Amino acid sequence: MNDVINTFVTHRSERSYLDKAIPEDILTNIIESAYHAPTSVHSQQISLIVTRDKATKEKLAALCGGQPWIAQAPVFITFVIDLHKSAEGIKLTGEQQIAHESIESIVSGSLDAGIALGTAMAAARAQGLGIVPIGGLRRDPQAVAELLNLPPLTFPVNGLVLGYVDEPAELKPRLPMATFRHEERYSSENLLENIQAHNQQLTDHWQAIGRDGGEDWSHTVANYYKNIYFPAVRPALLKQGFGIDK
Amino acid sequence: MNDVINTFVTHRSERSYLDKAIPEDILTNIIESAYHAPTSVHSQQISLIVTRDKATKEKLAALCGGQPWIAQAPVFITFVIDLHKSAEGIKLTGEQQIAHESIESIVSGSLDAGIALGTAMAAARAQGLGIVPIGGLRRDPQAVAELLNLPPLTFPVNGLVLGYVDEPAELKPRLPMATFRHEERYSSENLLENIQAHNQQLTDHWQAIGRDGGEDWSHTVANYYKNIYFPAVRPALLKQGFGIDK
Repeated sequence: MNDVINTFVTHRSERSYLDKAIPEDILTNIIESAYHAPTSVHSQQISLIVTRDKATKEKLAALCGGQPWIAQAPVFITFVIDLHKSAEGIKLTGEQQIAHESIESIVSGSLDAGIALGTAMAAARAQGLGIVPIGGLRRDPQAVAELLNLPPLTFPVNGLVLGYVDEPAELKPRLPMATFRHEERYSSENLLENIQAHNQQLTDHWQAIGRDGGEDWSHTVANYYKNIYFPAVRPALLKQGFGIDK
Repeated sequence: MNDVINTFVTHRSERSYLDKAIPEDILTNIIESAYHAPTSVHSQQISLIVTRDKATKEKLAALCGGQPWIAQAPVFITFVIDLHKSAEGIKLTGEQQIAHESIESIVSGSLDAGIALGTAMAAARAQGLGIVPIGGLRRDPQAVAELLNLPPLTFPVNGLVLGYVDEPAELKPRLPMATFRHEERYSSENLLENIQAHNQQLTDHWQAIGRDGGEDWSHTVANYYKNIYFPAVRPALLKQGFGIDK
């Protein structure tokens, strides 16, 4: 198997880091990789903020709901949807940007941020680092925007912890492939059986690695998705100047 | 430089393909890679639809605004935000999913789709294939949903063309790194100068590769972003059962 495929199929999130700095050339490779990722209509609507300052990492760890690995690891990167650059670029033509008034800008911005994030995660892991993506950055995105001095028409959409791993994590099982890969048309065939098989598999996994009280997949996802998750996202998007009604 | 970094920093979109099938093991590696990508709260809220049928690819090419490489290349993958699986999983606990009523579900779904897409693109290129991501799938997402038999609480968010390249594309220049990488706080310093430098660089690039009438970055982005781009996204999201008012 080639190194690229091997990097992807061994993906795992790490939550235990050594107090060891990341050499500048390794970090630069990660950021260069994300920089070359494609964006919708070549809008280049992504920016990254690199945080190494301990006090800022501690504030971010708290804003993300108390995730100690953010402060523990040497580098945290904030992935920013950035329509500020395109708005300024368009002004040079005498036109005005209005795309940010549409929910499509949030879809394409989030998607492009995801491409950059997936790229950075693989580039980091391929160089011997551990990573954990931090969706908890969206618990209070307005506070993150203020902390990082983000201008209007930008939105901090996800974080990424980078560092050398102390206690490695295990690979986590997935729902059966038949629920992910569909040939020609979407198929819900055997969906409940596949979910039940995964529920059992995940409970067995927690038991095997000695995590007491580990829940099955249905209960894990229910804990989050039976509620409106991250309700501060909508007001923060609006405050930053994005629209959702078009 | 290692193979993973090299794959990312040479990213390019190809729009010219040979009439040559993709071996099953290569396609499986691509899909296995995307399958192992992380998702928000381990929701596994992504599904892929693999299209090889010529007539379906032709319909998709038309729905995406007339992009002939979609029909020309052997495989097209539709990346689907999929909260149908989690909704069914949660029912098994006696609870109901309501997260899809919030715009956060669209943000996290698009982001997770981007991670899977970036992963699939790199896995394909690392195995000798060319790729082009197709945001044009969002020109008429409702028609795509119907064509691919997508259930409620799913949304076709982006496409990906896979195939062997006929006439290779060139690497496209990016805005200067200072507009992408920010240290500790966002900086707009020299933004206009950096945009102007990129405008000149992109015009030079089009001239160098012999593309007549190639526009600078400001005009290229203005062409799209001076309008509401993909206005059918919002009604299609609502029709598929997502909410945006929470």
